Order: sequence, then C-alpha cells, then structure tokens
Amino acid sequence: MFKHVDYLQFQAKPEKPDALLAAKMQELVGGQFGEMTVMMQYLWQGWSCRVPGKYKDMIMDIATEEIGHVEMLTTMLARLLEGAPSVATEKAAAANPLLAAVLGGQSPQHAIVSGGSALPRDSQGVPWNAGYIAASGNLLTDFRSNVAAEAQSRLMTSRVYNMTDDRGVKDMLQFNLARDTYHQQQWLLGIENLIADGLVEDEIEGSNRGDEKEFARRTFYSFDPESTAGEGRWAQGQSLLGEQLEYVPDAQPLTDDKPLGPAPDPKLYVTYDGSMGKGKPGTGAGAHAQGLANVVNKVKGALD
Amino acid sequence: MFKHVDYLQFQAKPEKPDALLAAKMQELVGGQFGEMTVMMQYLWQGWSCRVPGKYKDMIMDIATEEIGHVEMLTTMLARLLEGAPSVATEKAAAANPLLAAVLGGQSPQHAIVSGGSALPRDSQGVPWNAGYIAASGNLLTDFRSNVAAEAQSRLMTSRVYNMTDDRGVKDMLQFNLARDTYHQQQWLLGIENLIADGLVEDEIEGSNRGDEKEFARRTFYSFDPESTAGEGRWAQGQSLLGEQLEYVPDAQPLTDDKPLGPAPDPKLYVTYDGSMGKGKPGTGAGAHAQGLANVVNKVKGALD
Amino acid sequence: MFKHVDYLQFQAKPEKPDALLAAKMQELVGGQFGEMTVMMQYLWQGWSCRVPGKYKDMIMDIATEEIGHVEMLTTMLARLLEGAPSVATEKAAAANPLLAAVLGGQSPQHAIVSGGSALPRDSQGVPWNAGYIAASGNLLTDFRSNVAAEAQSRLMTSRVYNMTDDRGVKDMLQFNLARDTYHQQQWLLGIENLIADGLVEDEIEGSNRGDEKEFARRTFYSFDPESTAGEGRWAQGQSLLGEQLEYVPDAQPLTDDKPLGPAPDPKLYVTYDGSMGKGKPGTGAGAHAQGLANVVNKVKGALD
Amino acid sequence: MFKHVDYLQFQAKPEKPDALLAAKMQELVGGQFGEMTVMMQYLWQGWSCRVPGKYKDMIMDIATEEIGHVEMLTTMLARLLEGAPSVATEKAAAANPLLAAVLGGQSPQHAIVSGGSALPRDSQGVPWNAGYIAASGNLLTDFRSNVAAEAQSRLMTSRVYNMTDDRGVKDMLQFNLARDTYHQQQWLLGIENLIADGLVEDEIEGSNRGDEKEFARRTFYSFDPESTAGEGRWAQGQSLLGEQLEYVPDAQPLTDDKPLGPAPDPKLYVTYDGSMGKGKPGTGAGAHAQGLANVVNKVKGALD
Amino acid sequence: MFKHVDYLQFQAKPEKPDALLAAKMQELVGGQFGEMTVMMQYLWQGWSCRVPGKYKDMIMDIATEEIGHVEMLTTMLARLLEGAPSVATEKAAAANPLLAAVLGGQSPQHAIVSGGSALPRDSQGVPWNAGYIAASGNLLTDFRSNVAAEAQSRLMTSRVYNMTDDRGVKDMLQFNLARDTYHQQQWLLGIENLIADGLVEDEIEGSNRGDEKEFARRTFYSFDPESTAGEGRWAQGQSLLGEQLEYVPDAQPLTDDKPLGPAPDPKLYVTYDGSMGKGKPGTGAGAHAQGLANVVNKVKGALD
Amino acid sequence: MFKHVDYLQFQAKPEKPDALLAAKMQELVGGQFGEMTVMMQYLWQGWSCRVPGKYKDMIMDIATEEIGHVEMLTTMLARLLEGAPSVATEKAAAANPLLAAVLGGQSPQHAIVSGGSALPRDSQGVPWNAGYIAASGNLLTDFRSNVAAEAQSRLMTSRVYNMTDDRGVKDMLQFNLARDTYHQQQWLLGIENLIADGLVEDEIEGSNRGDEKEFARRTFYSFDPESTAGEGRWAQGQSLLGEQLEYVPDAQPLTDDKPLGPAPDPKLYVTYDGSMGKGKPGTGAGAHAQGLANVVNKVKGALD
Repeated sequence: MFKHVDYLQFQAKPEKPDALLAAKMQELVGGQFGEMTVMMQYLWQGWSCRVPGKYKDMIMDIATEEIGHVEMLTTMLARLLEGAPSVATEKAAAANPLLAAVLGGQSPQHAIVSGGSALPRDSQGVPWNAGYIAASGNLLTDFRSNVAAEAQSRLMTSRVYNMTDDRGVKDMLQFNLARDTYHQQQWLLGIENLIADGLVEDEIEGSNRGDEKEFARRTFYSFDPESTAGEGRWAQGQSLLGEQLEYVPDAQPLTDDKPLGPAPDPKLYVTYDGSMGKGKPGTGAGAHAQGLANVVNKVKGALD
Repeated sequence: MFKHVDYLQFQAKPEKPDALLAAKMQELVGGQFGEMTVMMQYLWQGWSCRVPGKYKDMIMDIATEEIGHVEMLTTMLARLLEGAPSVATEKAAAANPLLAAVLGGQSPQHAIVSGGSALPRDSQGVPWNAGYIAASGNLLTDFRSNVAAEAQSRLMTSRVYNMTDDRGVKDMLQFNLARDTYHQQQWLLGIENLIADGLVEDEIEGSNRGDEKEFARRTFYSFDPESTAGEGRWAQGQSLLGEQLEYVPDAQPLTDDKPLGPAPDPKLYVTYDGSMGKGKPGTGAGAHAQGLANVVNKVKGALD
Repeated sequence: MFKHVDYLQFQAKPEKPDALLAAKMQELVGGQFGEMTVMMQYLWQGWSCRVPGKYKDMIMDIATEEIGHVEMLTTMLARLLEGAPSVATEKAAAANPLLAAVLGGQSPQHAIVSGGSALPRDSQGVPWNAGYIAASGNLLTDFRSNVAAEAQSRLMTSRVYNMTDDRGVKDMLQFNLARDTYHQQQWLLGIENLIADGLVEDEIEGSNRGDEKEFARRTFYSFDPESTAGEGRWAQGQSLLGEQLEYVPDAQPLTDDKPLGPAPDPKLYVTYDGSMGKGKPGTGAGAHAQGLANVVNKVKGALD
Repeated sequence: MFKHVDYLQFQAKPEKPDALLAAKMQELVGGQFGEMTVMMQYLWQGWSCRVPGKYKDMIMDIATEEIGHVEMLTTMLARLLEGAPSVATEKAAAANPLLAAVLGGQSPQHAIVSGGSALPRDSQGVPWNAGYIAASGNLLTDFRSNVAAEAQSRLMTSRVYNMTDDRGVKDMLQFNLARDTYHQQQWLLGIENLIADGLVEDEIEGSNRGDEKEFARRTFYSFDPESTAGEGRWAQGQSLLGEQLEYVPDAQPLTDDKPLGPAPDPKLYVTYDGSMGKGKPGTGAGAHAQGLANVVNKVKGALD
Repeated sequence: MFKHVDYLQFQAKPEKPDALLAAKMQELVGGQFGEMTVMMQYLWQGWSCRVPGKYKDMIMDIATEEIGHVEMLTTMLARLLEGAPSVATEKAAAANPLLAAVLGGQSPQHAIVSGGSALPRDSQGVPWNAGYIAASGNLLTDFRSNVAAEAQSRLMTSRVYNMTDDRGVKDMLQFNLARDTYHQQQWLLGIENLIADGLVEDEIEGSNRGDEKEFARRTFYSFDPESTAGEGRWAQGQSLLGEQLEYVPDAQPLTDDKPLGPAPDPKLYVTYDGSMGKGKPGTGAGAHAQGLANVVNKVKGALD
Repeated sequence: MFKHVDYLQFQAKPEKPDALLAAKMQELVGGQFGEMTVMMQYLWQGWSCRVPGKYKDMIMDIATEEIGHVEMLTTMLARLLEGAPSVATEKAAAANPLLAAVLGGQSPQHAIVSGGSALPRDSQGVPWNAGYIAASGNLLTDFRSNVAAEAQSRLMTSRVYNMTDDRGVKDMLQFNLARDTYHQQQWLLGIENLIADGLVEDEIEGSNRGDEKEFARRTFYSFDPESTAGEGRWAQGQSLLGEQLEYVPDAQPLTDDKPLGPAPDPKLYVTYDGSMGKGKPGTGAGAHAQGLANVVNKVKGALD
C-alpha cells in the first residue's frame, strides 16, 4: 500500500516559463528512458521480487522515490507552460514576430490535450508504453537492466541540462543528475551484494551453463574481412569464466544447413515449385502427431 | 554494405514439427529481448559509433552475426510449423482429440498471416517495434544496455530451453546460449577496454559531474518505515566515487514546494477557483516573452 | 450497409491556407478524442448492441454522422494545406524569412506522406489506434464512455477554436462545437432513457452487486495525513445507493498480507534465498493439479 | 512525494494456483480499463489539477490507493502462477493429459518473460500504453472520463468474477467490485460538488458556448430511412440547456460543398486532371503568405 | 456525408456458435490486412483524391462498401460467440472435459472486454492502428497498394475459409472471396485507366525521372557469391523503360566512403577518441549557419 | 549468414549540415515506407520463401542491399546533424535569431536521445514497427506488396528530393530514386516470371477460386446515387478472368439479414430487452457443444 505526502521531494521552480523547453523535457518524463520508465520498472521488479528483506525493500524504496520524481517533473512542466499559446498564432506573431520562431517547436498537445500540463508522452508525442520496462524475476539480470536505464536516463538529463540557462530548472536537474549517479551505483553495488550473498552462480546470467556449446562461449567471430575487432580486450586474454578467448577472422558458416523451410502445406497457398517433394497437409492433429504419439497410449493406461 | 552467405551460421534442424513450441519461440524472435532487438540495437549503435577502429568494427561484427541469428530462428520456426493446422479444427479434433489440447496455444497468425513461417512478433503476437532498442552514441552507456539485453535474452532462451525435449531444437539453443554468454562478456570486457583506453571519465555515466548536488549522489532514501534496505551494500561503505554512502530511513521532503501548477490560462478552460490569482492568458508571444526579451534588442542591432 | 452522399454535412471552407493550423487540427482528426475515435467507437457499439429498435438505431445514426465529420475535417485540412512547402526550405526562407518562423510547426508528413492531405494521426504524428475506443455491450457503461468522449472532444475543439481567426475554419468549428454539445446531451438523455425503460438495475454499473464487500463501497480512504478530501461531497451524506458515506483519514492496510509471491520454480531462475521453503517445480500438469484433480475422475466415469 | 507501507491494502490469497485464470486477470492489470489505467489517469489528473484543497487532495488520495490496487493484483497473479509450466509440454501432457487442455490458454510470457509474475500487459499480451488515459485539466470533463473508466473497469472485474470459483480470488474481487462502486459514485458526487461550488458553467462541457451554431445543439439527425431513433428521450422534450429537442429524419447535407481538396502542388506528384485549374506550387513562404502578409509590415515597423 | 441502411450487404448466418473460429476470424476484422484496413485506406484515399469524377467516385463507392463488410464480419462474430464461456472454466471442463481442449484458443477479451462481440483487434488481440494504411494522393502508387491489400486480404480469407466446415460461415466467405477477386481487378483496371487517360507518365512511379542515376535503374546487384538470381527475368532482357537490364554478380561498393559520422559535439557526450579532429560544438545557430548564411543578408535588405 | 563490408554502397556526403532536413529524412529511414520497412520486409520474405533457387536468391539479394541502404541513410543523417543544437536555445537565438526560425522543426531526440545520429523512427518520432511489413509466403501476393512499397518509398524520396538544394544529399537521392525505379520493375518482372514458370494459377491471387460467388467477382456496386464510377474501365468490358463486368448503380442489400447479434448471455451483463428470447448462458462447454458433440463419441471409441 502507498501513501502520499503533499510536498515534492525536491523543489521544481523555474525562473520563467519556457514552452519550448517543456516540449524537450517531455523526453525526461515519458521517453524510453524517462522517469515513468524507471518508476514502472522498479515497481514491477519490486512486486515480482522473491527475496524478502533488504532486496525487496530496496527495490520498493527506489520505486517509491521514482513516483515522486515523475511528480517533480510534471510540476516543473506545468510551470514552464504558464502562459503558453492559447490564442491565434497570427496574432502572437504580429505582436512579436521573432518569438514566433520557437512556436514550431512547442507541443500542440500541451495546449490542446493537457491544458498547460505535462503529458505521459516523450518529446515527440509518442505515448509511454510498457514495452520499455523489464522485470524478469532474476535480480542479476534485472539489476543489469537498471544500471543501463539509469545511465541512459542520466545521459539524456545531462544533455537537456545543457540546453537551458534557467537557474531553477538547472537546480532541479542537478538533484536529478545526482540521484541518477547514486542509482547507477546502487544497482552495481546491488550486484556486488548478490554475489557476496551467494544468490548468483556466475557474475553473468548463466542458467543451464552446463549445456552450452563450450566452443561458442569464448569466441569472437568477425564478419568483415577488414575488421580490426581482434585488437580489443574481448578477443584476447581470459574470459570472465577463466577460459582463453579466441578471435576468428572472416568467420565461416559452421554448418551446411541452408535457410529453407520444408515443403509447404498446399492449403496455405504458399508459392512452391515442388522441388522438395510434396507438402504435408496440416490437419491440426498432424501438427503434433509425432511428438504426442506416445501420449495417447499413456492416457489410455491412465484412464483405464 | 552487406553480403549474404547461403548457409546458416549454425544448424536449425528440429527432430519433428511442434507448432506450440513455435508459438513460444516467437518470444526469442520478436520479443522485447529477442534476436530482432539485438540485431537492430547493434546495427544502430554501429552506425552511430564515432570511434573508428576496433570499437566500431566490433559492434558491426556482432550486429552482422545477429542478423544471421534471426535467420537461424526463422528457419527453425518454419520447420517446427510443418504441417500445422490448415483445415477445420473439428476434423482435426475428431481424428485425434487429445492433440486438440494444444490447439489453443498455437498462433493463428502462423497459418493465416505467414503461411507456416515465423512472424516479426513476440509470443503473444505483438509486432516488434523500435522502442525496444537503445543507441545513444555514448559507448559506456550503450554497452551497459547491451549487457542487460544479452542477459535478459539469455534468460528467456534458457527458460524456453527447458520447455522442450526436441534434441534438434536443444542443439541450436545450446549454441545460442553460448553466444549469449560470450556476448555478455564481450560488452563487459568492452567497458573494461573503454576504461583502459581512457575513453570514459568515470566507470559510470558522469557527464556534468561537477554540477550535481553532491549530497544526493551518495544517499539512499528509504520511503517505508519498516524497510530493511539499510542492510545492503548500497547503504554502507564507500561509493564507487570514493564517497561515504549514507542511509536515510523514513525520508522526508527536502523542500516545502508543493506539486501545484500556476494559475491557468482562462482560454484553456482548466478548472480553477481563483485561489492563486488571475491566470495569465497565453498569446504565443507571451510564452517566451520573459526568456527572449533581450533577443529582440540584439536582433534589432544585428539587422540595423 | 452504408451509402455515400457526395456533399459534406456542413461546409469546410477556410478563408486561406494555413499549414500550421492544419498540423494542430490533426488532433481533432486522429487524436485520442478526435473524430476518428467517436466514429469508430459508435460504429463498434452499434454493431455490438443487443437492443434492437431506438437504441441500436440511435447509435448507428450518430456513428454514420461521425463518418461524415471525419470527411469534413479531412476536406478542411486539404484546403488548409494548399501550397504548403514542397521545395527547399532555404529558398522559402530566403524569399520571406519571417515566414520561416512557422515552418518548424508544420507536419513534414503532410508533404512527404500524404501529398497535401490530412493524415489518420494526431497532432504529433502518432497513428490512430483502436486502443482509444470502448464497446462493452453494456449500454449504461458505454454511454458513460460516450459522454466523456464528447466532453473531451468538445474541449479540444474549443481550445483549437481559440487558436485561429480564420472565419471559415471558425464557422465549421461552431457547427462541430454545437454537435458535441448535442451529443453530450444525447448520451446523458440516453442514460435517463435506459433507467426509464428499466434496462439497468442501478444508475451505476452494479453487476454482482450482492457479492460486494459492503463496507468498501461507501468509504473514502485517504492516504495523505494532510489531505482535505474529507470536505467533499464524496465523503459525507448519502451515497447514490442510499448508504451513509464514510471518511477514513490516514487509511491503514486492512490485512497483514504482504505483497510477496510464493517460492519460485527453480527452472525459471528467479533469484531466491530459500526463505519461503523450496520452490515448486512447475510441470504443466502441476499448474492445475489441485483445481482439476477431480476432473480426472469425472472424465473416467464419463468415458467408461 | 510518496511512501510505501509493506502490507497490501486488502489480502490477495488464492486457494490454489491457476495459470489460466492468471492469464485472464491480466486484463484487470494492464488492459485498457485495468488498474494501471486508473492509477496513471488519476496520478496525471492530480498532478495537472489547478484547484488546491479538497479536489486535488481527493484525486491524489484515489491515485495513491490505485497504486496499491495494482500491487494487490500483481501479488495475486504471482500466487496464481505458482508451479506454472516450466518444463517440456509433452512431459506434462504425458503425466496428466487432460490438464494439457488448458495449456493453450496460458500466457507463454508468464514463464518466459516474467518468471512466474504478472506482466504490465493485457490478457492478450499487449503492453499497457498511455494512450489509454485522459487528463485535460478540466475537472468536469475528466470526472466524466473517470466515471466511465470505473464503470468499464467494474464490468470487466464482474465478468472475471464469474469465471472462477476460487474463494480467495473471489474474496479479493468482492473488495475490488465495491471500490469500483464507490469510485463511480465518487466522481459523480465530485461533479455534483463542482456544480455546487460554481466551478463549472453548465452541467456539460460548454466552453465557447456563445459561439455555437444554436440550431445544431438541439437536433438529432437520422441517417437511416428506417431508423426508429426518434422514439428516444434524446429526440423529444427539453434539452439539458432548456431548449426544445428536434428530430430530423433522413437528414440531408446542410451545404452544397463537396469533399474535394484544391488543385494540388505539382511538386507533390498528386494525381490530377487539371479540372480545378493550375495547382499552386508551395514554397514554404507560400504556405502562409496570405495569413501572414501583414506581419511583415508590422515587423518592419517594430524593428525600424 | 454518409447514410446507413439497416440490412447487411450479404447475410452473416453461421450454422452454430464457434468461439475458437471467432478468435481466428478477428484477423479478417482488425488484422494488418483485415476489412478495417481496406475500409480506412479507401476512405482516406477518397478524401485525399484530387481527380473529381469517376476516380473519386469509384474510390468512395468501394470505401462505402467496405464499411459494410466490417459490419458483416462483426455480425458474424457476435453470432459465433453466442454462449461462449462466461462462467468458471473448471465447471465447464468438469461437465465435458474434452471441450476444454479448445478453451485455450479463445480470446479472453471476447468475454471480458466486448461481452460476446467482435473486437477492433487482430487474431492475437493487437488493436488496429492507422500505420496499416496508405494514402499518398498519387493514384498510381495508391492503386498499387490497393492491389496488394486486396491480394493479402483475399489470401488470409482463403486460409480461414479452409479452417471451418460451417456452411453459413463458408457462404459469407464465398461472397467475400469474390469481392476480393473483383477488387483486385478493380485496382488493376484502374491503373489501366489512369494510363489510358494520360494521368501518369510511366507505368511505374517515376517523378523526377530525369534526375535519377541512369546506371542504377536497370541493374540487379547480387550480394551472395552463390546467388542464382541472375537467371530471372529481372536480370535479363529489357526493362519496363526499354533499357537493357544488367546483372552484377558479387556486387562491390560504388564508393570508398565509409559509414562514419563526423567528430561529435562534446556537449553530447558521445564517446570519441579525437581521431577525426575536434568536434564542432553545436549552438543552435551553428546547425544552420552554412545553409542560411545568405538569408541574413537578404532579410536585412528586405526589411530595410 | 551475413557479412559486412566496411564501405557504403554509394556515397553519403552532404555539402553542409542541415538539422531540419535530417528531421524530415527520418521519414525515409523509419517511416511506414522507409528503408527499414523494405529491408525487413524482404529479409522476412526471403526467410519465408519456399522456392529455392532464383526466387529465394533474388529476394535475399535485394534484402541484403537494403540493409546497406539504411546504413547509407544513417550515415547521411549523422553528417547532416553535425553541430546541431546542444546548448541553450536562447543563446543560439541571441547569436543569430533568424536561424531560430528552423529550431522548431528539428527533432529534439536527435540531440537528447541519439547524440547527433539517426533514429529508428519516422519524421514525427514514431518508432518503426513490424506492423508495416508483409510476408505471406505467397510470392504473387508479396510481390504485389513489394511493388507498392517501392512505389510509395520512391514517391516519398522524390518529395524530399525537392525539399533540398544540397548537392551531396541530392547526389545520393538520385541513386536511391534509381534503385527504387529498378526495384519496382524487379517485382513486376518477378510477377511476369512467376506466371511464365507456372507458379501461379491466375494473374491475381485466386485460391479457392471455384468456391467464390461468381456473380460477385465481376460486379461494381455503387453506393452513391450521383456516382459516376460507372464510366471507368472497372465497370465495363471484360474482367481479367474473361467475364463481363457489370455496373450496379445505387446498390441494394442482397439479403434481409439485419446486423444484430443473438440474445446475450446474462452473465456478461450486456444490455438487453428480452426481445430476442432468453440469452444462452455460456459454460465453456456450451460454446462448442454443437460442433464437438460427435467428438466425444469418437474419443470414447478410440480410447476404449
């Protein structure tokens, strides 16, 4: 369950309105790596977490903080949008035509749709969607996603930070940059802690490790005859699993299998020249006939 | 420019058709962390890379390999779909009703849309979209995203691996698991190499580092009175930047600023009780009046 | 079946072209609450309606009218786009640089994609999608959605109306505003009629009313210690069902149940510390073993 | 700012796992009218609200409650997914083939993507997106959207309620049904309160009321010669604005304007027969030449 | 303006309900090439058409017919969904467990969302979106898109036709197949007519024909050393423009230009090793400094 | 498997940066008919192709070329974006205010998200998605889609070509225009070849031809009393199947069937007046009871 406190975590007071900056800052709200993404990603990971105690609590704490970050940003945007155009553009241009210059960059939806408030969309108006977030239940894997999300988010914030001289906006972004810095570390230190607690087997995701083709997990294949990729650390020395890395220039296919499907079912009207024999007409039953043949017998036994 | 070689990188030969498994394996093709995602993410990062030589070559090499991985998977799926239902379901069920059990789990689009081939969609039929990929131009940040993508991708592959006993499918997935293992390392070693080459300032994204609110980059704020998050590594000891980490239980707002926008423009018909004074009517010009006031004068000078 | 009449329902004659306004008016065409939305929402509700006679006829009538409203708007936009930029921007700016000011706000797709015509997209270029519409078969519920759609649509239209001085555009929007006014009433009167005809049990959606937790349907829970929400009508007096409304300040959990999933299946590689016992390995069968256990016996009987 | 309490608002304890029900209940989590929608819609409306005091507090209170409802549902789904299939389907079917019957209806992403947890998606696997929510700043309009959202949400919940016999699931849904009942009322009573407080001019959205075409706001147009829509309340008696409603059977166009764009710009290669004269070549400048002609002169004056 | 006639164009009477078939037939309603697509594509092309007379009338006629085809399909689906599951699955399975077999393949949204009616979605539940349709204003180009849409649509219909034995469903699909046949021809004959009327210059889209690189419009480049593509008609004989087709096996780059961006702006924090010189700091002005340099002077003159 | 060659297929060297043009050219990269679409469409068709030899090789050759076209465009855009705004907009406008004019039209994501590189999005910022591509396995049908895609793509390229005077950009687009010309022909000649090779039965998609309603495949129905569509070639003379085309003005319904679903299941709470009798309560079993009745008996026999 959640509670709300009627103050912002950190102040969001621009010096003056700036509708063009508000349009750009939408990327920090509803973009692929905006605050909505980390808020929802951490909420979802927290709700999916199966390790009670410090891990689950840590994830829920940061998730709860991030709801407040979206709140800070939406407040900032509403203030930046104060007095944004609501009447005929021509009149505005006539009164001060140079200002018309930036009219184009504003989001028309800030007036038409939200009435001078932030939108749950990115800087190009694309609605936020849950295809941006990751929550697999595997903490090592998800913490990797979180480090990446904080890094991408901080980079975007830093780029936007350079796009304004407004001291109030910069003040809030200085807080946000710092939180992104801390949160990057939080997840990296979280990985350190997972290892120390013995909750992961390798430092990298390695389920079904024993079944891997061993030759393929320590080899760099190059697909360009002029590639210089062999000079990198990834192509020489020891792998993280302690194996010798190998570099294969001008890689060749490891098989003579060609990418071709089987003869198609005639009832699907797939173009076909008969060169692979007659297509097998699917029957629904046929789809699984081979794989489930023995099931029938077992069922008979079970029910008899 | 690219070339095509008419063999698969690794063989894709299932023992027998299995339309239900094909539906599940769509997640590995067109899911958020499927092969289409890494193919497109690496192509895009390679095309955006501004460090010629081993880094750009390495990214293009793996991108090129991943196109071939989508090829392997689409070939595998076409073969798994051999003989999948193309006629009336009832007839199929009548011939072998137990097999009807799995009819529901098949993708109807495998027959209706693609004629027995793979789809550029996930296991639930959602089309792949470019909102899944990241390419910021900043290699440290993007390599973090790549580690995460490979980890999530490997985890999904590993879960699917457990869902079949088909030796041909498992054989190919053993190759894919190994490549995911190698690729996870490749990006981690790439980060190691970026640091060694002096191409990043911190081990984490830290642009505009000097402008951050220092107190906020080393502090864990907890928002649940019963939280045990203070027990974690992220809340004690030194940060990655060598600062002392701090734990703040039951965090309070750092400001008395409340989340409230300014008095709204009357022409936007936002509900308002007048309690914050009269709303400022936006005029288009007004939106930027304060910020651009001095521009007018400078332009006058420039053009005179 | 439908017919077409080769005249607009109402005229769509702008005084002069205005490509910037055309970009904004896309919101009224293909936005979340644009005319495409009400056209499709009403068509779908009409086709889903199970009450023959005046209700179904009324819905189909308004749906048919709305197709014509999209037609009016697309005609208006084609005319507003007359002579919009099709040659090099620099030349245009050189010929009359002040006009370049609004170039930025135009939709590049109006030239590149549609050749000077309207697009089935919103003012930011996002394609219309069917996730905007509602059609549940329950007329009370859907009429509520329709009142809301007309209200949001009218508000957007009204905001756009203030953004132009073009008498021709305003003339058409005066008609559209009036239709939105009428249509809001139409759905509210429709609800009145449903009640009078005895087609709904309560004035609000109340299926399975008898199974509700009674205490929870008349209670306002507040989650902010400083909330003043208790002053509102929703927290005092009688509910619409004739019960006494209750206000609960600083609401507490109603359970000691914590948000934590069960011990995870080891084969899913979810991070887990063993604190909740051993995870149950899923087997497909296992998933439903408890719930369907008795089915097996009944089947045996049925088939024997 | 937000806080988290480590208990659910109401308990979420199913009697037994049921992966098929979990797939269906995704609609209540991430569907168009699921809990994510109301959570985000209310958060966004609260952050956009310009009426401090009881209205803003009320919206934030319910928004905060709804975050907790998503938490309850995700907890319920994780528990329903306990032991869902993670190994080869055939083995499962062999052990108990009848149970295979429901395998098809499960979400493959519940195992492959989320590791036995809920997904931020609907029952068909479509990711939640912000195109589902409305926040216009106009409380009357948004409260209408909220009544509709609660009604649609309750109807879906009620339908799902009938699809299970699990007493634990039903127990929680009885609470959810009641909250949806209360919340429907809350928004209707909120509208009542807005009127009482004089914050809206009409009972329906009526901005720019004076500019409407008066004849069109009290008229039902019918477009089907056999329509019986004239029998409804919406076609007779007084409108909500106190005007006489009019019914127009077999409506005719109100203009002789035909839906046809102007002669196209030749540089856009739109097919054209010359019948409307020569197309006007757009020049960027040309696009706004007529509307902005006087601006040039005013600017000259302003800068001279 | 449009009218509605209260009969279907062709009857939609299934012999019996079949919820599984209804789920599949959603592809014909709201899939990429379903009836919603052709309905919207033709409406949009009609509204964009600049050739009054037979062409515009023809497009509007077929668009109007297609609205009625969606109506036929939604009616059919509502009837196929009669009596689809609305109560607990287990009870259903207990009553007749074999029938549970197909439960998985049903759309849960047919009950939960639409109450036994069709959905504006495809067979996997993905909402229809306007990214499926094309309307460029160029009739030759759009008629090509229309031929393709009718061919894909007919193929899907034909595949679904084979999936049922229901005489009523087949009866309607026999009508739909015939209309798709006619409509394919309609667009091909439309192209024939465009040529006869002199409304297109080439038989293929050829705007700016004179500016093309001539060598590249008659050449097949092969990128696989083992490719046999040179055997096809596209690689030998005359092109449609009367030029000699050329086949280039094992194609090589036509330039020594490498895919590398310029030295990046330091303020964007793109990883860079300095090897291409110092990055140019962007300034907003700088972005267009070269291209617009002369504009300044011209403006000065114009305004003085 | 694929290989990469470290040169572009054709040079991508603009004379000077132009961030506004870069924003527009995104349509050619990630728009509905941009290069990403043809790249992915042909890759998918190649992987789905069941005719080994020249057809499959031809499709894979063009698919491989198109990957290189995306590479050319992304390189061009990175160069056009050199020095695009990365600092405060006001400063830029102050330094050269006229240049501010085009600021609005730039993509903010080119700086914030991609750091001066191309994006996998269209000119309005909408991410590319796989709903744009077609691959049915039927070559005639897919080649039709390909002709259309090349025609739409060429038309967009031609429109953008007119929007710049940059000789370097025009040089590359002259190559692209020529390739689009060739590729349109390639697919048309491919259709010619399919016919010559006897791989299609009709010149149009005609599966299940014998089952069509014959009267409906040669008839133009008009739905507007004033329509002049009867004057077109599609309404007179012989059809492509050698039948006499027929024109039906003012078409009437071919049935007295009305678009109305059956009496609804009471448990779905669909509004209903009882006029069609009592709704049938769905039971899961009931849904298929009629169609699968005989299955039970057959299964009994099979298992006994």
